[in-house]
Amino acid sequence: MSNVPYKRLNKDDAVVLLVDHQTGLISLVQDFSPNEFKNNVLALGDIAKFFNLPTILTTSFDSGPNGPIVPELKEQFPDAPFIARPGQINAWDNEDFVKAIKATGRKQLIIAGVVTDVCVAFPTLSAIAEGFEVFVVTDASGTFNTTVQQAAWARMSAAGAHLLNWFAVACELQVDWRNDMEGLANLLSQRLPNYRNLINSYTKFTAK
Amino acid sequence: MSNVPYKRLNKDDAVVLLVDHQTGLISLVQDFSPNEFKNNVLALGDIAKFFNLPTILTTSFDSGPNGPIVPELKEQFPDAPFIARPGQINAWDNEDFVKAIKATGRKQLIIAGVVTDVCVAFPTLSAIAEGFEVFVVTDASGTFNTTVQQAAWARMSAAGAHLLNWFAVACELQVDWRNDMEGLANLLSQRLPNYRNLINSYTKFTAK
Amino acid sequence: MSNVPYKRLNKDDAVVLLVDHQTGLISLVQDFSPNEFKNNVLALGDIAKFFNLPTILTTSFDSGPNGPIVPELKEQFPDAPFIARPGQINAWDNEDFVKAIKATGRKQLIIAGVVTDVCVAFPTLSAIAEGFEVFVVTDASGTFNTTVQQAAWARMSAAGAHLLNWFAVACELQVDWRNDMEGLANLLSQRLPNYRNLINSYTKFTAK
Amino acid sequence: MSNVPYKRLNKDDAVVLLVDHQTGLISLVQDFSPNEFKNNVLALGDIAKFFNLPTILTTSFDSGPNGPIVPELKEQFPDAPFIARPGQINAWDNEDFVKAIKATGRKQLIIAGVVTDVCVAFPTLSAIAEGFEVFVVTDASGTFNTTVQQAAWARMSAAGAHLLNWFAVACELQVDWRNDMEGLANLLSQRLPNYRNLINSYTKFTAK
Amino acid sequence: MSNVPYKRLNKDDAVVLLVDHQTGLISLVQDFSPNEFKNNVLALGDIAKFFNLPTILTTSFDSGPNGPIVPELKEQFPDAPFIARPGQINAWDNEDFVKAIKATGRKQLIIAGVVTDVCVAFPTLSAIAEGFEVFVVTDASGTFNTTVQQAAWARMSAAGAHLLNWFAVACELQVDWRNDMEGLANLLSQRLPNYRNLINSYTKFTAK
Amino acid sequence: MSNVPYKRLNKDDAVVLLVDHQTGLISLVQDFSPNEFKNNVLALGDIAKFFNLPTILTTSFDSGPNGPIVPELKEQFPDAPFIARPGQINAWDNEDFVKAIKATGRKQLIIAGVVTDVCVAFPTLSAIAEGFEVFVVTDASGTFNTTVQQAAWARMSAAGAHLLNWFAVACELQVDWRNDMEGLANLLSQRLPNYRNLINSYTKFTAK
Amino acid sequence: MSNVPYKRLNKDDAVVLLVDHQTGLISLVQDFSPNEFKNNVLALGDIAKFFNLPTILTTSFDSGPNGPIVPELKEQFPDAPFIARPGQINAWDNEDFVKAIKATGRKQLIIAGVVTDVCVAFPTLSAIAEGFEVFVVTDASGTFNTTVQQAAWARMSAAGAHLLNWFAVACELQVDWRNDMEGLANLLSQRLPNYRNLINSYTKFTAK
Amino acid sequence: MSNVPYKRLNKDDAVVLLVDHQTGLISLVQDFSPNEFKNNVLALGDIAKFFNLPTILTTSFDSGPNGPIVPELKEQFPDAPFIARPGQINAWDNEDFVKAIKATGRKQLIIAGVVTDVCVAFPTLSAIAEGFEVFVVTDASGTFNTTVQQAAWARMSAAGAHLLNWFAVACELQVDWRNDMEGLANLLSQRLPNYRNLINSYTKFTAK
Repeated sequence: MSNVPYKRLNKDDAVVLLVDHQTGLISLVQDFSPNEFKNNVLALGDIAKFFNLPTILTTSFDSGPNGPIVPELKEQFPDAPFIARPGQINAWDNEDFVKAIKATGRKQLIIAGVVTDVCVAFPTLSAIAEGFEVFVVTDASGTFNTTVQQAAWARMSAAGAHLLNWFAVACELQVDWRNDMEGLANLLSQRLPNYRNLINSYTKFTAK
Repeated sequence: MSNVPYKRLNKDDAVVLLVDHQTGLISLVQDFSPNEFKNNVLALGDIAKFFNLPTILTTSFDSGPNGPIVPELKEQFPDAPFIARPGQINAWDNEDFVKAIKATGRKQLIIAGVVTDVCVAFPTLSAIAEGFEVFVVTDASGTFNTTVQQAAWARMSAAGAHLLNWFAVACELQVDWRNDMEGLANLLSQRLPNYRNLINSYTKFTAK
Repeated sequence: MSNVPYKRLNKDDAVVLLVDHQTGLISLVQDFSPNEFKNNVLALGDIAKFFNLPTILTTSFDSGPNGPIVPELKEQFPDAPFIARPGQINAWDNEDFVKAIKATGRKQLIIAGVVTDVCVAFPTLSAIAEGFEVFVVTDASGTFNTTVQQAAWARMSAAGAHLLNWFAVACELQVDWRNDMEGLANLLSQRLPNYRNLINSYTKFTAK
Repeated sequence: MSNVPYKRLNKDDAVVLLVDHQTGLISLVQDFSPNEFKNNVLALGDIAKFFNLPTILTTSFDSGPNGPIVPELKEQFPDAPFIARPGQINAWDNEDFVKAIKATGRKQLIIAGVVTDVCVAFPTLSAIAEGFEVFVVTDASGTFNTTVQQAAWARMSAAGAHLLNWFAVACELQVDWRNDMEGLANLLSQRLPNYRNLINSYTKFTAK
Repeated sequence: MSNVPYKRLNKDDAVVLLVDHQTGLISLVQDFSPNEFKNNVLALGDIAKFFNLPTILTTSFDSGPNGPIVPELKEQFPDAPFIARPGQINAWDNEDFVKAIKATGRKQLIIAGVVTDVCVAFPTLSAIAEGFEVFVVTDASGTFNTTVQQAAWARMSAAGAHLLNWFAVACELQVDWRNDMEGLANLLSQRLPNYRNLINSYTKFTAK
Repeated sequence: MSNVPYKRLNKDDAVVLLVDHQTGLISLVQDFSPNEFKNNVLALGDIAKFFNLPTILTTSFDSGPNGPIVPELKEQFPDAPFIARPGQINAWDNEDFVKAIKATGRKQLIIAGVVTDVCVAFPTLSAIAEGFEVFVVTDASGTFNTTVQQAAWARMSAAGAHLLNWFAVACELQVDWRNDMEGLANLLSQRLPNYRNLINSYTKFTAK
Repeated sequence: MSNVPYKRLNKDDAVVLLVDHQTGLISLVQDFSPNEFKNNVLALGDIAKFFNLPTILTTSFDSGPNGPIVPELKEQFPDAPFIARPGQINAWDNEDFVKAIKATGRKQLIIAGVVTDVCVAFPTLSAIAEGFEVFVVTDASGTFNTTVQQAAWARMSAAGAHLLNWFAVACELQVDWRNDMEGLANLLSQRLPNYRNLINSYTKFTAK
Repeated sequence: MSNVPYKRLNKDDAVVLLVDHQTGLISLVQDFSPNEFKNNVLALGDIAKFFNLPTILTTSFDSGPNGPIVPELKEQFPDAPFIARPGQINAWDNEDFVKAIKATGRKQLIIAGVVTDVCVAFPTLSAIAEGFEVFVVTDASGTFNTTVQQAAWARMSAAGAHLLNWFAVACELQVDWRNDMEGLANLLSQRLPNYRNLINSYTKFTAK
């Protein structure tokens, strides 16, 4: 009945792709405030760590003006495959990148990057064409302005990509709070100040 | 010819699902002003009562920071099935919740909740996958910001969910004003101040 | 290749439906400024007249608080079928309304009304289900706010409706400026102040 | 040192003026959503009652299209001076209105009304010219759009009016929560859903 | 006590200045939609006529790209002083313009024009410096974008100009509806569609 | 699996269509600021030149108020087919225009124009119906306001058009930076000030 | 010549007041996103520490629904005067609070809090009335919505308060980068992601 | 009568100060789009050249991450005093900068820079305190977001600064188009695309 059947994210079948979150390129992002964007990207990093998802980093010309990958991501994933692309704009055109993905044996790609309309959209469209399920983390992907953002979302959605946000990724992978309540609460509380406030109020009140 | 054939809401085939409208979680909602959101949620409650629709309430960890269900809803539906989920994030993963729905024998699910991208989107996607018609009440469902809202709407719409608002739900169920003109006018007048103003002007003018 | 094949508006196959543009109901519209909305609705009326399209007016309870149809429309179409619905919310549930449409023998419905999510969306969805091509004039249709507007657009678009604006309707029906250049220029100049300015500048400059 | 010395609201020196909150005129308001505006106006009414402030109601042509005063206000202040102005646009031009104010012996005017740029701004400017302190409740005063709102605010502020919101009025009059903690909490909880949520969470948690 | 004492508009002391509403220049205006702006400018013209205020028109290089004055204004004021400035940007630098103002013997200048930051702001600042009271009709004055608008408003307000909107001008000049109720109602009803709707509903209801 | 399979832009199969970027018509555009729009359109022109894509220019009544094509485009493509349409609104109705396209033997149409809902949407829909792949450059296409823009995007997307932005076009055609790094960097640096800043900082720092 | 003479912040004459940043009250803030607000408040805390400014914390009913002070602030200032007000809404009404300020012997108050219109505005107005210079850190102060924010800003500005943002506070206190370049760079880089990116790009490039 | 008497810009008494328009710092600007901001800054540069105004450039740490001055400005003013400040944040604290200004003997300072709240606001406040007239070019000055922008504008305006935009600067200095019609038209046409369109339409039409 539906056009795009529900593909539920599964922590045993998902891999995270972080594309071109570089110190120079991020200065181009204006569809999120810098703090909002930083928080969202690091939240996605937290999720990848928390669920032990294989994670693949890639950059575009990081020796040039685009700048190096933001250090927080590199530190978070010191041993992850890191593909510094020598020139391919679409990361899917880089054999090492695709090999690294295929090496995981996983079919669900959780992707985010800078800029949404190119560094995210191109590999998303290519991966769908090869039969992968692609989940675009819209709030960890940034671009020039909201007009460009909306066109890029429409293009990816029309091609069958699943649009969602980092919080939905975390919750869909977690399935049940009881799998690790403290762990998830801790993750959320670092990235959602109002959730942290709820926890702090609760702790205070129930301690009385 | 169309992709998603018109499924008309029918008061004999519809059930209302109110998911995680809890005092703590609502503080996370920023895509509606607090008053706007409260009014919309209570309007949906009014509709469920007015049309005698079976209504199912559920909460996530209501003994923790998420807080209890907002009292107005609990008071409005004192005898409705109330499923306090012990940990499942997707309400559809809770057997009691799904059983309560199936026990009604109805196939049209009218759903709203907090937050849209998780507590609404997940059961919506699961229910569609099981063959239910799902009608998402977009203005009685809240989340972190409009960017997240738009991605969640896109994901649900792509999967075949029907997006609509509480006023459309009321009107589609009513079919004809003559079924209970005073009742519907009273309902609308509590929740649409400008409609109430029209009625009050009318009453004044025609009383002359 | 495409999902919704191009159905080109044709002045010999189109009929205009103006639904519930009533003096009371219009006070509910807040997704357009009052002047913007009035201008758009009257522009659509101008188009119907200019192309001699059969036009059907309908109202909901015009003896009650919803108020009478706005006089400009009634004056513009003194002899058009005018169906004052006694209670049906979905105009398609009113036999006279549907009969009036079918009596024209036309299959392309150009529809606008107040409010978008109900008075426009319901007959749009019903008509598509019966095989009509429906063209929703989005800027001559108003509702409570843009959140409601966006959900209603999404629902109708998913069902196969064509979303467009009055200017596109005029241009698609005209096909070629040479069919009546002065007539179309006059129409546009009444409703698009910046276009009128272009004409006035041109006239002044070339008269020198 | 400052241009406009701090005039602190004092419940023994303040009077509330509610100007032209009529069922017809309110349909002109588009700088607030209808629910937001209704909530703000009724909150101001609550405040007047709670602090036993003398309150004066006035309307403009309430037998004509402007419509009667909204019933909630009339019910809230059944015995308040009610001046149905026969024609004066600036309420200050109506002798009865000014007499009613002067009869209270108070010098601090808390004013709100529809529309901000006329029904609020004119008496505000006149009263300041006569030596009154005027506190404009900006969120209980509505008008056509935010451009008009901003110009009206600028005009009143330049003339020495104090711009504030209903919540600030309540808090400035209360001075100390201990003067009536339950009373104020109850008032706020009816008009600030997120504050009500805080109270409900707190009650639940501390009851454990 | 106040910084800018209330100067009440008086129909016997006011003159209207319409500056550079030209067919070319108006295409630069983007802080109002074209329809909104046209309606506001013509409303101000209506007001000048209705109160028989002396009105002075001026243009900047109307034989060049700036284009001629919009015909509606020229038609509305066929006998008004019309000063086609040969080059002065600040209309106050044109002797004929200032002479025409001084010939009226009036001290209250109601001004609007295109663009706000130049054609309105410059003569406003000059006139204040010469002791005139200047009332800037903010919504009949347009410019490039709202950032420019806000800076221009701030500059004029700081210099002592009164910022208001056309509706406030009409109401302040009228003083009392009884001075000509039908006339004012007619004026408003042409320019405020929602007010017209109120009148039409009222007429319908009370005719029953 | 996807609805709209990924069609990757290919510089050997693409042709650029620039429709009605005329000096008069552009004054109607209000969904982009004038500078933003000019920059986007010229960027698309730069891309066509850089990749040597066949480019076709067309205008609507350029001897009338719509005005001539903006000179920058004409200068950029002095030898390109230039079809001054004598009256057809939909450029696809003009035989010369379609012939010029077919003469290139290319199947990927990159289109932009003014106004989006007519001059872009009509040929886009017609071309898709004839089997072409159409890539709409959303940020080099302008119209009256964002409401109209959104409806036009929805209509084209539903029909199978690919929505994207000029930067994505450039990157998809380039494939690999190494194909001409300096050339692309130069192009981007003229049209993306923040990218130019990155390059200038880089050059300065590495020169030390 | 100026109305409000420049009072330059001086690290030897300034004291920081953090008012009611409590876990419950912050859930009322909607004029900033939660992340944006958290970042701004903590940045102000960083500044107070960096410049060794005396800092005073105060809360309103922190044993009730308002919740405890956010732990980050308490941890940052373990030894600062902490005044848990038993009921006074205006902190200036609390003798201990004012005494703590006067004990510093400083005359420049840097204030921020929740909510802007009450907890910040009231002590700001009171302090100005007593001759203090008050610097309101607008982006570390939050409230219900931007309409309330704007009215509160206007009220404080009219009374002579200096409106500024945390970044301006840091820079005005620092005077010269050379006073502690690394220290300030480190502070900014924690709170301004784009500034951190500049530093990281620079470090990478110059290390080559 | 006015608070801030009209100080008319005079090309013989004005000097232009361009503060910290550096390749790194500009990446912090988000209250204007990058293209909009670049265009505004270069327009101000054009004005300084066109009127032969003495122009002074200054930078903050241009050998560090802040980056060098944008090359276009350096090229436009190769011989202008260029003060690379070794550490002073407020340019007014740099003796060379103030000396360069005083050396011109001029009293009207036209200032723009990055970021508005610091690099523009600080020298503006200092200069006013020393008796200069300061004209802040609001649209050639950028900062982190509009909230910061608005607070900075309010602070400078309260201190007596004149807020205006580059177009107003150009027009106020020009006084009369006849002083150099072609020159000014050329300047505007490079920076105001819609004005260029007017000129191009005019030229085409009158050439016929």
